[in-house]
Amino acid sequence: MAWNTNLRWRLPLTCLLLEVVMVILFGVFVRYDFDADAHWWSWRTEFYYRYPSFQDVHVMVFVGFGFLMTFLQRYGFSAVGFNFLLAAFGIQWALLMQGWFHFLQGRYIVVGVENLINADFCVASVCVAFGAVLGKVSPIQLLIMTFFQVTLFAVNEFILLNLLKVKDAGGSMTIHTFGAYFGLTVTRILYRRNLEQSKERQNSVYQSDLFAMIGTLFLWMYWPSFNSAISYHGDSQHRAAINTYCSLAACVLTSVAISSALHKKGKLDMVHIQNATPAGGVAVGTAAEMMLMPYGALIVGFVCGIISTLGFVYLTPFLESRLHIQDTCGINNLHGIPGIIGGIVGAVTAASASLEVYGKEGLVHSFDFQGFKRDWTARTQGKFQIYGLLVTLAMALMGGIIVGVGLILRLPFWGQPSDENCFEDAVYWEMPEGNSTVYIPEDPTFKPSGPSVPSVPMVSPLPMASSVPLVP
Amino acid sequence: MAWNTNLRWRLPLTCLLLEVVMVILFGVFVRYDFDADAHWWSWRTEFYYRYPSFQDVHVMVFVGFGFLMTFLQRYGFSAVGFNFLLAAFGIQWALLMQGWFHFLQGRYIVVGVENLINADFCVASVCVAFGAVLGKVSPIQLLIMTFFQVTLFAVNEFILLNLLKVKDAGGSMTIHTFGAYFGLTVTRILYRRNLEQSKERQNSVYQSDLFAMIGTLFLWMYWPSFNSAISYHGDSQHRAAINTYCSLAACVLTSVAISSALHKKGKLDMVHIQNATPAGGVAVGTAAEMMLMPYGALIVGFVCGIISTLGFVYLTPFLESRLHIQDTCGINNLHGIPGIIGGIVGAVTAASASLEVYGKEGLVHSFDFQGFKRDWTARTQGKFQIYGLLVTLAMALMGGIIVGVGLILRLPFWGQPSDENCFEDAVYWEMPEGNSTVYIPEDPTFKPSGPSVPSVPMVSPLPMASSVPLVP
Amino acid sequence: MAWNTNLRWRLPLTCLLLEVVMVILFGVFVRYDFDADAHWWSWRTEFYYRYPSFQDVHVMVFVGFGFLMTFLQRYGFSAVGFNFLLAAFGIQWALLMQGWFHFLQGRYIVVGVENLINADFCVASVCVAFGAVLGKVSPIQLLIMTFFQVTLFAVNEFILLNLLKVKDAGGSMTIHTFGAYFGLTVTRILYRRNLEQSKERQNSVYQSDLFAMIGTLFLWMYWPSFNSAISYHGDSQHRAAINTYCSLAACVLTSVAISSALHKKGKLDMVHIQNATPAGGVAVGTAAEMMLMPYGALIVGFVCGIISTLGFVYLTPFLESRLHIQDTCGINNLHGIPGIIGGIVGAVTAASASLEVYGKEGLVHSFDFQGFKRDWTARTQGKFQIYGLLVTLAMALMGGIIVGVGLILRLPFWGQPSDENCFEDAVYWEMPEGNSTVYIPEDPTFKPSGPSVPSVPMVSPLPMASSVPLVP
Repeated sequence: MAWNTNLRWRLPLTCLLLEVVMVILFGVFVRYDFDADAHWWSWRTEFYYRYPSFQDVHVMVFVGFGFLMTFLQRYGFSAVGFNFLLAAFGIQWALLMQGWFHFLQGRYIVVGVENLINADFCVASVCVAFGAVLGKVSPIQLLIMTFFQVTLFAVNEFILLNLLKVKDAGGSMTIHTFGAYFGLTVTRILYRRNLEQSKERQNSVYQSDLFAMIGTLFLWMYWPSFNSAISYHGDSQHRAAINTYCSLAACVLTSVAISSALHKKGKLDMVHIQNATPAGGVAVGTAAEMMLMPYGALIVGFVCGIISTLGFVYLTPFLESRLHIQDTCGINNLHGIPGIIGGIVGAVTAASASLEVYGKEGLVHSFDFQGFKRDWTARTQGKFQIYGLLVTLAMALMGGIIVGVGLILRLPFWGQPSDENCFEDAVYWEMPEGNSTVYIPEDPTFKPSGPSVPSVPMVSPLPMASSVPLVP
Repeated sequence: MAWNTNLRWRLPLTCLLLEVVMVILFGVFVRYDFDADAHWWSWRTEFYYRYPSFQDVHVMVFVGFGFLMTFLQRYGFSAVGFNFLLAAFGIQWALLMQGWFHFLQGRYIVVGVENLINADFCVASVCVAFGAVLGKVSPIQLLIMTFFQVTLFAVNEFILLNLLKVKDAGGSMTIHTFGAYFGLTVTRILYRRNLEQSKERQNSVYQSDLFAMIGTLFLWMYWPSFNSAISYHGDSQHRAAINTYCSLAACVLTSVAISSALHKKGKLDMVHIQNATPAGGVAVGTAAEMMLMPYGALIVGFVCGIISTLGFVYLTPFLESRLHIQDTCGINNLHGIPGIIGGIVGAVTAASASLEVYGKEGLVHSFDFQGFKRDWTARTQGKFQIYGLLVTLAMALMGGIIVGVGLILRLPFWGQPSDENCFEDAVYWEMPEGNSTVYIPEDPTFKPSGPSVPSVPMVSPLPMASSVPLVP
Repeated sequence: MAWNTNLRWRLPLTCLLLEVVMVILFGVFVRYDFDADAHWWSWRTEFYYRYPSFQDVHVMVFVGFGFLMTFLQRYGFSAVGFNFLLAAFGIQWALLMQGWFHFLQGRYIVVGVENLINADFCVASVCVAFGAVLGKVSPIQLLIMTFFQVTLFAVNEFILLNLLKVKDAGGSMTIHTFGAYFGLTVTRILYRRNLEQSKERQNSVYQSDLFAMIGTLFLWMYWPSFNSAISYHGDSQHRAAINTYCSLAACVLTSVAISSALHKKGKLDMVHIQNATPAGGVAVGTAAEMMLMPYGALIVGFVCGIISTLGFVYLTPFLESRLHIQDTCGINNLHGIPGIIGGIVGAVTAASASLEVYGKEGLVHSFDFQGFKRDWTARTQGKFQIYGLLVTLAMALMGGIIVGVGLILRLPFWGQPSDENCFEDAVYWEMPEGNSTVYIPEDPTFKPSGPSVPSVPMVSPLPMASSVPLVP
């Protein structure tokens, strides 16, 4: 299985082709919406209600997900770089796909800041799936996966939001559940029997764990913006931020608790701190804009921190050994299960919505109980929320299997790495020459002003590339 | 003094217990405020005036303080991770404590975005104190300290804002002075006679200094949001941002000047760049929303950059050797003295407020000279500002000594490290296997809990764990 | 050419002198504007329209530019630290210079959030120029350069915006073109014949490339805020953000494509990912607020990603070998050429503005076709845009040569490093002691596609400081 990983013509042609198609489709279809077009000028636009949240979401997609995945010791360039590439392509394709479904005016898709947020949301789902296949696929495969996943995301989102009239502010279902189970299906299909050959590179090192914490923290801090970014103005958006803030805080404490409890010396594991602490944001996604109450949010975070950490310790190894699901980042624990919990919490919260808690206007406004839905009760809403979750799971699994992925991604010419070269930047990146030693070699030509430095040769514990053999 | 640092049951139980208490108290007490409740729907809410500032403050607390403290070579996990833990707990407890004092409506605490900001502010004060004890305490001790400090913070804040009618927009007194002298008192009480046994680990390395600069810069850049986050809408908030921007800029130049002037070869010291440059934000905190004038802000930053840098060079060693105050991050120089300066600047600025400068309405509006305070003059306000500063100092010192800290934190069963194992991540964290190579000099005086370490010749000046012996 | 690099008195005196001058000038000239003064109180101010964008721009200047330049293996402290220093001074001087030209009311400069943004913009231009001279100048030289460049920037900006009535929302001309060609002129004048003596330090290492990606991503993500920060409220600001988002996304795909296509094994080069991907933001700067249309923005990004990457591969080496322009960060490719493209795109877009596309009011509003410009046509505007670009290029080149730079910066007493000590933090910074080793273990199971790797114990290519000799 020694595939050719030289992407010289394949990657450039793929990128250029995709981008040319984007330019043409944008030319034919995409225009500015009312708020962003020079014809109709107004000082007060949607822009000012959404733009700060948009930027926070943008940071989560590019720095949050990108750096979270730099924990691997030799895969930092690819983690950040490929995430950058797929997200940059994905947001363009998402603007089109979501535009056709939701923002058509006549023959044109009209775009404004809300579209930018939605495109970022859609891509977040791809970033989630990327976490499952991290280190085992080529950038071409990622672009193909992005193309199909964005397409299916838009279909699933349309079914949920427009047909089933589901509420899903923070995307527990549409983004996290869908992204996670799509990604897990893909990684199952791409199962690598001999992956233990590159096991050594699957560990983190000290600095890579610190880089990953940058990703974790920006995800964690900006999650209130994520869950509130497209809620209705006013109390819904406000409430979504508060609930997410509470859930995330609780999740940190229980993640730490379980991480320590499961270690024989009570030590904390960076994997859990990096990946289980933001699970509270995922699980509160659907219900964030509802009257979940701050204590409800705390309970969601409480439970999720525990389940997510347990997942990393027990479920991930089980999935790998028994079901052949190799989940590099453990997305099942950060996005999969918390996403399902989020869908259920949302359904229960919706089903138990009452006049007392929401007020009459509040209930109508919060759940759009008017027009087509004017006869709906809270219970109906709850039921449809559950349908939404089931549809999402089905779409993710079937989609992952049938549409292309099984047929396309396994083809041998996408430049994927062999089993022993997984998790290795050097396959796709020109590596910096000095990378063997990040440490500030003292250059002999440099004349230090400090005390003199012994200039004898030193050994590194493991062999380093392109350096001089010690013993000739 | 070989304490048991295995936290297996103590840390999980502490976290779970605290979180369960939070859930119960939130259930009993916390509800949404008018702006965030579905009953009363309005498009225009406090949310849009405060949310962007809130997110900036949130980044300061978690990334700013967290990464600023990663400068220690072997304590990056703990710096970021424990800061994350204590802040996540602290914001929940602060929502309750500050809620009882300031946001009670009937039997309920009602929360909105302003509460989130205030909770983050309160926790910032704990992060300050964490800087003093960094590397010398266990996470359990930090949770206990957070519990007491948040409680006292809320009491002190209530005395200042509600009884003494003090203005303190950016919290020079309530946050920085209080946090710093509380933390210094605690570290004095926890004095470690033989700390020089882990002296080697108290230094930074090249990469850890760069990680710390991430913290410094996010603190420095977002400080205008910090100081303006809870000012009155309009000119006060606007002015607070401008003044802080000016003060911080001036502070950078004088910090650099003094850092270079005090080095025998004129070289800059990263410690000063990391820690003295944001002092201008601390010192302008109280007066930021007042008519301090941009040149006034520059002067404050100018003076503070000098004093803070001098403090790092002369005062910190003096405090350690003479007063047995071991201040790991030098918080006395970044928060303590600048906080006091900020309190005084605020008092003087308030006392010299005039009709000419503020206008009649402006004076009343800026200092709330109405109702209870309708007969106050600027001079009265200035006087009470000074009282506020003195109360804060007293509360911090007495609080630190009496309430629990002296009695509780020194108990031998909180899992604190022994003197020779301070500043060491491996005590509380499962370390990545490859970390040996990422340098992490193994201190010969450190007794690792893992498998024994071959002490054959190594690359690094200090032996490293799990590496291959050079000569078989 | 062994200059004295001990800055002990020169740097402190320069900093203190500059800051004292700032304090005096601020005292004489700077006051709050209407929106920030206590006299006239209003809830709705410019502050709320601009502040979130301001903070994003602030992050770009200090973290974006600062960390982008940390890619050099031994120059991270200086990259982040000197950028911090020059920007902190520059924003103060810019507030004054731009204030005198644009914000005088009576004898006072009145400042508000718009001034802060403009000051940051001005300094961004200095950060661009810093990229060209990175590693080869002392902090004193940088402060001198900042002083002159800010001055000239303000003059050039005045000519463009006030005399030529040019539109330049994102500063393709005023910021990027000006900054780049000013910086390139300076680095040409400071040409170092023997720079290859410190060639080794001009490379990156693994971690330094990851730090640089933090800079890249924050620049890339926040560029929509940069280009829209000072556009008119409403549709202009909204459109500027959308166009920039689109252009940046397209630029990533073509940068990746060309990077891979130009490597013999199809590998990606970090230099291109770090530096070419944000070029789309530069090139769409002028036209961002115009009715460029999303597909127009995609085309701009498409072209720029290609040209910028080609520039890094072919143009930078050519400029160095033939024209003696040593452009450390390749700013010609990220800011120079994309800036010129941006100016031209802006001119063409303006010249082709039509009633049909803008509507009558929209056309007048977007290009200020009223008062002095009431008889202008779109074509006139386009013509003046080109004049603006030419003036900018002339100002940058002549300015760089004549005003002081040639005469002043080459003087031998500013503490500049000798040719063999360039790109070296230790010249100006007290280095942490333990900096000797950090690194990336080479996995023995990995089969690289490159030349075979000797698996014997290796020596680091360069001796390391303060380590134990291998053979006693």
